[in-house]
Amino acid sequence: MSDMLPIALDAMGGDHAPAAVVAGARQAVEEYGIPVLLVGRADEMGDTGGLEVIEASEVIAMDAEAGASVRKMKDSSLVRAAEAVRDGRASAMFSAGNTGATMASALLRMGRIKGVNRPAIATPIPTPEGNPTILLDAGANAECQADWLVQFAQMGAVYAKARYDVSTPRVGLLSIGEEDTKGNDLVKETHKLMTAVDWRAIGAEFVGNVEGRDVMSESLDVIVTDGFTGNVVLKTLEGGIKGIIAALLGAFGSTPEAAAAADVLLPTLEPLYRRFDAESVGSAMLLGVKGVCLIGHGSSSSAAIVNGLRQGADLVQSGLVDRLTVAVGSP
Amino acid sequence: MSDMLPIALDAMGGDHAPAAVVAGARQAVEEYGIPVLLVGRADEMGDTGGLEVIEASEVIAMDAEAGASVRKMKDSSLVRAAEAVRDGRASAMFSAGNTGATMASALLRMGRIKGVNRPAIATPIPTPEGNPTILLDAGANAECQADWLVQFAQMGAVYAKARYDVSTPRVGLLSIGEEDTKGNDLVKETHKLMTAVDWRAIGAEFVGNVEGRDVMSESLDVIVTDGFTGNVVLKTLEGGIKGIIAALLGAFGSTPEAAAAADVLLPTLEPLYRRFDAESVGSAMLLGVKGVCLIGHGSSSSAAIVNGLRQGADLVQSGLVDRLTVAVGSP
Repeated sequence: MSDMLPIALDAMGGDHAPAAVVAGARQAVEEYGIPVLLVGRADEMGDTGGLEVIEASEVIAMDAEAGASVRKMKDSSLVRAAEAVRDGRASAMFSAGNTGATMASALLRMGRIKGVNRPAIATPIPTPEGNPTILLDAGANAECQADWLVQFAQMGAVYAKARYDVSTPRVGLLSIGEEDTKGNDLVKETHKLMTAVDWRAIGAEFVGNVEGRDVMSESLDVIVTDGFTGNVVLKTLEGGIKGIIAALLGAFGSTPEAAAAADVLLPTLEPLYRRFDAESVGSAMLLGVKGVCLIGHGSSSSAAIVNGLRQGADLVQSGLVDRLTVAVGSP
Repeated sequence: MSDMLPIALDAMGGDHAPAAVVAGARQAVEEYGIPVLLVGRADEMGDTGGLEVIEASEVIAMDAEAGASVRKMKDSSLVRAAEAVRDGRASAMFSAGNTGATMASALLRMGRIKGVNRPAIATPIPTPEGNPTILLDAGANAECQADWLVQFAQMGAVYAKARYDVSTPRVGLLSIGEEDTKGNDLVKETHKLMTAVDWRAIGAEFVGNVEGRDVMSESLDVIVTDGFTGNVVLKTLEGGIKGIIAALLGAFGSTPEAAAAADVLLPTLEPLYRRFDAESVGSAMLLGVKGVCLIGHGSSSSAAIVNGLRQGADLVQSGLVDRLTVAVGSP
């Protein structure tokens, strides 16, 4: 990946920043050869292992109001990271900090792809086998219009093709029943618009309405929904999986016999754990801006940062932004 | 439970009706002494083990249009079951058939509790330890108004008190961030109304906005949301848990060593499985109508029917409908 421009990583963003972020950056460089550029207050970063640093004096707090902060704090690590992408110094920006401010920085500094109504957050959801399902919008737009959802679906299909080499992505519209007549007003209107799209023209297939139980199934490649529902779904799954894993670990440690048996199972359970762990992907992507903008979990550990950077490098190399510009952008 | 009126069970409703339904009814009577009344076509029920039957000649199909079917098919098992409650012959109705038609039968035959805007489906969500969290609306109203959600929250609190003896139920409003300003327009408006309610008057507490990851946590007793989001959340959890259990079972069977170790773990894993299995509760309840209306999963096995009848008997004996009438009904 030596020919790839570095990923501009917001060293100051996230609950465990800068220590966990810098540690993750160093590991990603050493183990996977992913080029990384740190953005933030160099004097707070500790030993960066010689990584290039873009100095930024301000930090946008996790709970700060997004739009106002980005407009006011022009020397913040988030704004400087977005500028690095805009100026051709970085191939992507990545932050585990304030999600709203990350999106606002990308929007204001990189700009929207021409023709895109609204950017959307695309999050890969693990499935028991095979490729993840791309869920979008996972939280960028709490209120949506039907035509935005149609475009989210198109962007999601391009993502599945570029990132996971899916030849004909199957796209589902999240609803509360498979019948066309089921759903809230937004879903009913979106369903009508979706059936009028020529999906073959972009090499995808609309499979109709799907339900919550399909989110983690392998029968779909893309699930489209509004940003409120998408965010709730994502966090519900995270919480549910976390709860079950905690309950399992509790059971495994309940008696010496159980612990011994669990040790035997470890080699078969570990790949499963890695597959379903929320940190194993590590970053979602804001689709629709002129550059790769990666969003990490606020609670990201250094391992999550590493995984997020790996996912980011794959997204950069997939040429997704150019493909989105051709497929859904207007000239 | 000999002093309890029987539960009117729609023998014809569900993917495995009438066989699985009748088998579940017989088991509930024999093992738990729950009085059951079967409603439907007696000549299709097979051996009912001497259970009382209310004859009904029509069956509303799983995918039939709800309102029209209920109005037209006056001798259907669903309508007759609802009438049995209205007429004081049964303490509750229970169907694993067409959910919309079940709700419509209850609404049209039993009627709404005076003062209730809209009935809502309340579903208990399992948590790793302790009482389930009551999620409502789990699908009765795809489009909601803010004042309906406030009333759902109040009904949910009464449910948690009556059914699970929670002294001061903690009620959360499902959103995409804990801050008051986060969420879609409906949530923002609902939040304002919720903060103006005197929760102490009904012996509950409003804890503010909560997120998807709180759905399966023990820090809440009631989670309120619109019927679209609630249904998506419920099915997402069901699908996710099912996927993880399937993946675990696959890992357990992957080698003879793993299978032997899994056998040792079985006694500790079984209670967990029972806790998280979607069939372990077996029935949701439509809150806000003048009687107990229980809704089962279309795919209910006989075990799910047994569990649904047990949950139903507990709900009947909790006096929930009377308590709702006092707490949220208007005189």
